[in-house]
Amino acid sequence: MKSALSFLIAARRSEIAGLQRLALTSELVGAIGRLVHALQRERGLSNLYLGSRGQRWAAERSAQVAQSEALQDQVLRAFEQLDTDAARSGHRARLFGRIAYAMQGMSALPRLRERVAQCQWSTDRTVAAYARLIQALLGVVFEAADSAWDPEISRHLVAFLNFLQGKEFAGQERATGSALFAAGRADADSQQRLLHFIESQERCLQVCTDLASPAIRDLWQAAQQPEHLMPLERMRRILCTTASGGTLDAALSQPWFDACTRRIDAMKTVEDALAAELQGLCSLRLESTARDLAGLERMAASLRTEPGQEAPDFFDDAAEPGLPAGLAGAGDGFRAPMDPSLLELVREQARRLQSMGDELDAVRATLNERKTIERAKGLLMAHRQLSEDQAHKTMRQMAMNQNRRLIDVAEAVLAMAEVLPSRG
Amino acid sequence: MKSALSFLIAARRSEIAGLQRLALTSELVGAIGRLVHALQRERGLSNLYLGSRGQRWAAERSAQVAQSEALQDQVLRAFEQLDTDAARSGHRARLFGRIAYAMQGMSALPRLRERVAQCQWSTDRTVAAYARLIQALLGVVFEAADSAWDPEISRHLVAFLNFLQGKEFAGQERATGSALFAAGRADADSQQRLLHFIESQERCLQVCTDLASPAIRDLWQAAQQPEHLMPLERMRRILCTTASGGTLDAALSQPWFDACTRRIDAMKTVEDALAAELQGLCSLRLESTARDLAGLERMAASLRTEPGQEAPDFFDDAAEPGLPAGLAGAGDGFRAPMDPSLLELVREQARRLQSMGDELDAVRATLNERKTIERAKGLLMAHRQLSEDQAHKTMRQMAMNQNRRLIDVAEAVLAMAEVLPSRG
Repeated sequence: MKSALSFLIAARRSEIAGLQRLALTSELVGAIGRLVHALQRERGLSNLYLGSRGQRWAAERSAQVAQSEALQDQVLRAFEQLDTDAARSGHRARLFGRIAYAMQGMSALPRLRERVAQCQWSTDRTVAAYARLIQALLGVVFEAADSAWDPEISRHLVAFLNFLQGKEFAGQERATGSALFAAGRADADSQQRLLHFIESQERCLQVCTDLASPAIRDLWQAAQQPEHLMPLERMRRILCTTASGGTLDAALSQPWFDACTRRIDAMKTVEDALAAELQGLCSLRLESTARDLAGLERMAASLRTEPGQEAPDFFDDAAEPGLPAGLAGAGDGFRAPMDPSLLELVREQARRLQSMGDELDAVRATLNERKTIERAKGLLMAHRQLSEDQAHKTMRQMAMNQNRRLIDVAEAVLAMAEVLPSRG
Repeated sequence: MKSALSFLIAARRSEIAGLQRLALTSELVGAIGRLVHALQRERGLSNLYLGSRGQRWAAERSAQVAQSEALQDQVLRAFEQLDTDAARSGHRARLFGRIAYAMQGMSALPRLRERVAQCQWSTDRTVAAYARLIQALLGVVFEAADSAWDPEISRHLVAFLNFLQGKEFAGQERATGSALFAAGRADADSQQRLLHFIESQERCLQVCTDLASPAIRDLWQAAQQPEHLMPLERMRRILCTTASGGTLDAALSQPWFDACTRRIDAMKTVEDALAAELQGLCSLRLESTARDLAGLERMAASLRTEPGQEAPDFFDDAAEPGLPAGLAGAGDGFRAPMDPSLLELVREQARRLQSMGDELDAVRATLNERKTIERAKGLLMAHRQLSEDQAHKTMRQMAMNQNRRLIDVAEAVLAMAEVLPSRG
């Protein structure tokens, strides 16, 4: 027969098993970050290669493809390490689903590369294909962040996800600006996309620094050197404010590319630090939980608590200040004995788990903006038969026309859901 | 090497394992409901016994104690069946923590009964002790509902929890009203508590019927017969509106007790139906998921999908309407081939899991009101050194004074958190 103490021990063991999983997930997420970085470079070089009609950049591109492949192997190995056989809860189903989707994308990469090598696809289409794969990989990170049950680790995962996503927007900003300067002519559509990438990037980076540790905040602060940021901001202004149809200085192509690349490279150092911090955190949490468990097990050995043994102070003691509601006494004036009883331990555990739950709710709420936008996009896609790109563009256009934030538009779209005609 | 298909299969297996756990949890939750009902009766009989100074109701009380004990054994057996050894995720830690706390309460029951048998405790104190144990048991149901990952099952669990909680408020309403009629004199404090029990009860039952199936709604509708409800409402009005200090007709004690008991017994039939529906739902979900899994496994056998096999349509096909954002194509005009490819399956799965996630968020939101109130209570307890009862009373008083709902007051309390002096 299991005793109350055995459930306390089971709770700690469950935490430890969960932390071991989160440690593997964190490794996976770090590997995905590295692969995404490599794919971003591969995308950039593929663009240059396509732009030169296959005359230049072939060697650089091949070298980068080799590097991407090596990093992809690391991601596949990390997938391999995930405990899929013994998954005893349904919580992992969504993560596995995202992984299956990302794997489909990775397996289609060789053919994409072949098409690029033979200059069969346009730069636009190539950029879109790489972006789709990167989004599929970020989807895995999103799910990992959303399904983590430890608030501190979840907070780090959300920060990491936002950083990766911000970096991807920076990459798309670079590509869009490069195309504009190369064309030598401003056009409203590209300018609007550019603005979207800049704004979304800043929002992601803001969420990340809000959630990250002071060390990461300092690192990111230091990485943004004014002498590098200033020329970027100047070129951003030129790109965004030139009237549609107006001339853009093609000579700025290279400075623009370099300024963006410097920014993205600086991001990479912060990203690596975030990934390292995440893994360190998992180790620390594992150690401290293992210590707690050892203490409980010693106690179990010495107490030999039998099921049915009395917990005489359960009804006697006064409610303790700070105890979560629903777990407190009726306040009848008695005090609990001062020696740490099993009941004290049970309450301490309950208090800790409740505060973890509260914190987790708060962290998850930061994922909700993304969820809301994705949901609204999905709704538009379903009801208006739009592609994802078109749905996003539609919402962005609504936001600009109404001078509202994207999230507000998304909420309005969802609120309309009931009056939309059903699909089919 | 794992393939995308193997992750699809792992996702389904994970769901099945999770559903098997949820089925056990649902059984546990049903057993808790039965035990709570028995403890409510035991509390009522203990009150009558104490009120008669041990002269009457002894036999009835003993019989009820025996029944409670039998039901408690069933709950302990359900605890026993939970898979604590193999819990591979951290999600179960909070559930186990709540169980440990509830077990402490159950192990203290024999001594509580002894004190009642010897008329050592007042009725107030006895009622408070039983209420504390019942809250500890409902805490297990709360955690089960909050940690369920399947939205439909979670919805049923939340409905069940709200029904149990509403029934407990009805039980407390009966006890409070009985004490008032027995005293023959209205007093503002008890009247306020009575109002609180009525209002909270109605809120819980409303949440339950909002979430429950039409069959349950109909059953609950039918259970509330006007000819039974009318006298109850009349006595409620008398209890709540008699000026403090005014006389109450002691002869109404028995009719009040009977009317409340009829209501609670009617609730019991709905509760049993809810518990049965929950278990039926688990079986259905298990069957259909097992069918899906079998289909995937047949496909795996026939496809022999190798890792690294190409998914040529990943970058080619157009975004499909209705596909979740982030999982859709770039909308480049191509159509996917019409035969169901692996990619189609992956997307179908992603779509399903995403919509499950959305639904789950919505269901969990209904638990948030309770969480908010509990959190605010905990905060008051910590900062003002109040017992749980006192904290709840304080918030109720604030709500009455300001003519606001309890949830609004709770939110205001939490918003004040930053300006409250820290404890110690």
